[in-house]
Amino acid sequence: MIIKKKFDELEEIVVSKKELRLFVLNCLEKVGCSSTHAQQLADILICSDYRGHYSHGLNRLHIYVNDLAEKSTAGDGEPVVIKEKGATAWVDGCNLLGPVVGNFCMKLAVQKARTHGIGWVVVKNSNHFGIAGWYAESALQQGLVGMAFTNTSPCVFPTNSSEKSLGSNPICLAAPAANGDSFFLDMASTTVAYGKIEVVDRRGGKRIPRCWGADSEGIETQDPKQVLNGGGLQPLGGSETTGGYKGTGLCMMVEVLCGIMAGSSFGKSIRKWQTTEENANLGQCFIAVDPDCFAPGFRDRLGCFLDETRDLKPVDQSHPVQVPGDPERAHMFMCDELDGIVYKKSQLEHLEKLADDLAVPMFRTKKVAGAMQNENQVQVALDV
Amino acid sequence: MIIKKKFDELEEIVVSKKELRLFVLNCLEKVGCSSTHAQQLADILICSDYRGHYSHGLNRLHIYVNDLAEKSTAGDGEPVVIKEKGATAWVDGCNLLGPVVGNFCMKLAVQKARTHGIGWVVVKNSNHFGIAGWYAESALQQGLVGMAFTNTSPCVFPTNSSEKSLGSNPICLAAPAANGDSFFLDMASTTVAYGKIEVVDRRGGKRIPRCWGADSEGIETQDPKQVLNGGGLQPLGGSETTGGYKGTGLCMMVEVLCGIMAGSSFGKSIRKWQTTEENANLGQCFIAVDPDCFAPGFRDRLGCFLDETRDLKPVDQSHPVQVPGDPERAHMFMCDELDGIVYKKSQLEHLEKLADDLAVPMFRTKKVAGAMQNENQVQVALDV
Repeated sequence: MIIKKKFDELEEIVVSKKELRLFVLNCLEKVGCSSTHAQQLADILICSDYRGHYSHGLNRLHIYVNDLAEKSTAGDGEPVVIKEKGATAWVDGCNLLGPVVGNFCMKLAVQKARTHGIGWVVVKNSNHFGIAGWYAESALQQGLVGMAFTNTSPCVFPTNSSEKSLGSNPICLAAPAANGDSFFLDMASTTVAYGKIEVVDRRGGKRIPRCWGADSEGIETQDPKQVLNGGGLQPLGGSETTGGYKGTGLCMMVEVLCGIMAGSSFGKSIRKWQTTEENANLGQCFIAVDPDCFAPGFRDRLGCFLDETRDLKPVDQSHPVQVPGDPERAHMFMCDELDGIVYKKSQLEHLEKLADDLAVPMFRTKKVAGAMQNENQVQVALDV
Repeated sequence: MIIKKKFDELEEIVVSKKELRLFVLNCLEKVGCSSTHAQQLADILICSDYRGHYSHGLNRLHIYVNDLAEKSTAGDGEPVVIKEKGATAWVDGCNLLGPVVGNFCMKLAVQKARTHGIGWVVVKNSNHFGIAGWYAESALQQGLVGMAFTNTSPCVFPTNSSEKSLGSNPICLAAPAANGDSFFLDMASTTVAYGKIEVVDRRGGKRIPRCWGADSEGIETQDPKQVLNGGGLQPLGGSETTGGYKGTGLCMMVEVLCGIMAGSSFGKSIRKWQTTEENANLGQCFIAVDPDCFAPGFRDRLGCFLDETRDLKPVDQSHPVQVPGDPERAHMFMCDELDGIVYKKSQLEHLEKLADDLAVPMFRTKKVAGAMQNENQVQVALDV
């Protein structure tokens, strides 16, 4: 059923995970992706939207579809372990879908952590793997600390550079706390993602905060159009005086752990975003750590640390202090209450086009009831 | 020989490493520190100043001296390995000097990396260990990637908090590149250190950049006095709109790797800076990774990545793009040229007092020749 065009752009609808999953599987089947691989991609895209990271969810389905259709990503096969020593492994992702590669590597890291206390797996020839948090979460589910990193296409101006040469390389660490709580950091090493700037622009906003983006010459700008038209992102911290060189350092650190260790593409040699002439050949790094190798009581201490932080007196009573993972938890809770994932109409338009192009039936939707969370709450988690 | 009071505050002098070392050893001997421990502390403090990280060098000698004098830090003994599994170890620092503990742990991590590919050592009951880069450097000297983390006394307002509960917890990764080059990131997870704000204030500056600090209520301020009088630091990124919640996340991530894993003090329970009523009981984490476990050619790729970054077209020709470690390299080169470490008179005043208090002879200094680098160049590296 096609979503009715009359919906206001900001009107919200709900789609069940089951409907979404079927849709993704149908799309991927049309471009020759093997069923087990398609399921892995579907799971992570839906999880991404469920967590509120819409920029990495179904929003990107067409990119994966295009990569598969153009044979720029392989739709079947298995990653290969090239080299192993103790706690480490070096893997060839064989140009498979990022989630297939990532799941393989994190599973291996978890196995190694059981034996050696740590598992540290680095992979070349991979593709976009979606949210890094997915892989950290799978270590978390095993009671381990999980970390995941990837390099990405250049979109960031290093401090003082007028050329973009770094990706928004994410840093992710998840750790289990008592009573099902967790520390869950999953952040791009830029101040914000493009998506957040696009939202301001689409709503007619003429001004973005400092530290977000730069114009085509690499100079900080507060005009969203200058960022979107040939400009780029600033590293976390913004310009030099506000600490941007540290964000640049973090971006580069992730590249050292990924492309440089993996022997994949790195830095400005990574193919341009959404091109398919050459394979992405991304480098990624997956780490699992068994906290029981160190002081007993890790989960209790972490739970205490998280609660102590949440209980700090806030500057503004209406904005309590949150810990990494809280915005996502709030978003997942909201989705659970609504028994599906919340989207704005504008977020689904391109999926209608994809459905048309692939001749796949669009998923069914339902309107959000009046008690729906407000727009800002959905927005908060859009780009954590 | 006492430095003459007539020196202008900004006048620069040079002191040889040998003179500095003797001075530090003399001071530490006076408070009953064992000779081998004193040597380790002397080495790291001098290295810190040599690298341009003056905030962590001789500037802090009186704090270590006071801790030893008050028996809040033990001046003799050896750390103990409590638990070992594969690539991991949990160590009791036995309340020894931070550098003694850190050297012990990184040496163990390096040994483990030789056997297991990775060494991951976590320690409790430690003390301030100086610059994290010292430990990463020692892994680097062995051809390994080194990482070091520590928690520290609360001085940072988490995003939206009106209470300080996090330290300026450093993130440090050093990796070896071809031809003696290296990637060398050693950064506090705050936008800047207190020292940088003190410098502005001492020079009569009325305004600091955004994202640096907050007043006593946790609200961002550009008035240095408000930060210094009961206020505190902002995490990297500053306030929420400029990405400060990511800096908060990074601060907390370091605490997870340190205090939470180690079973030491953590978060707001860490003793107040420069108090000695209770032991510091800091938690620290040391990681060594053998890059040869992954793709061959790590050093060449890293060298290429570093040079490609340096060669990016700069926004301003007079500010070439630098990579983490470059400001320190420039500072060390300057010191080498001058055959000693450069200080401003104001940086040494408290050492005169310490020398008087301990009845230790002050070190000899020489005046900088006219061709000396300008003040800003010394400043650049003050708080990387």
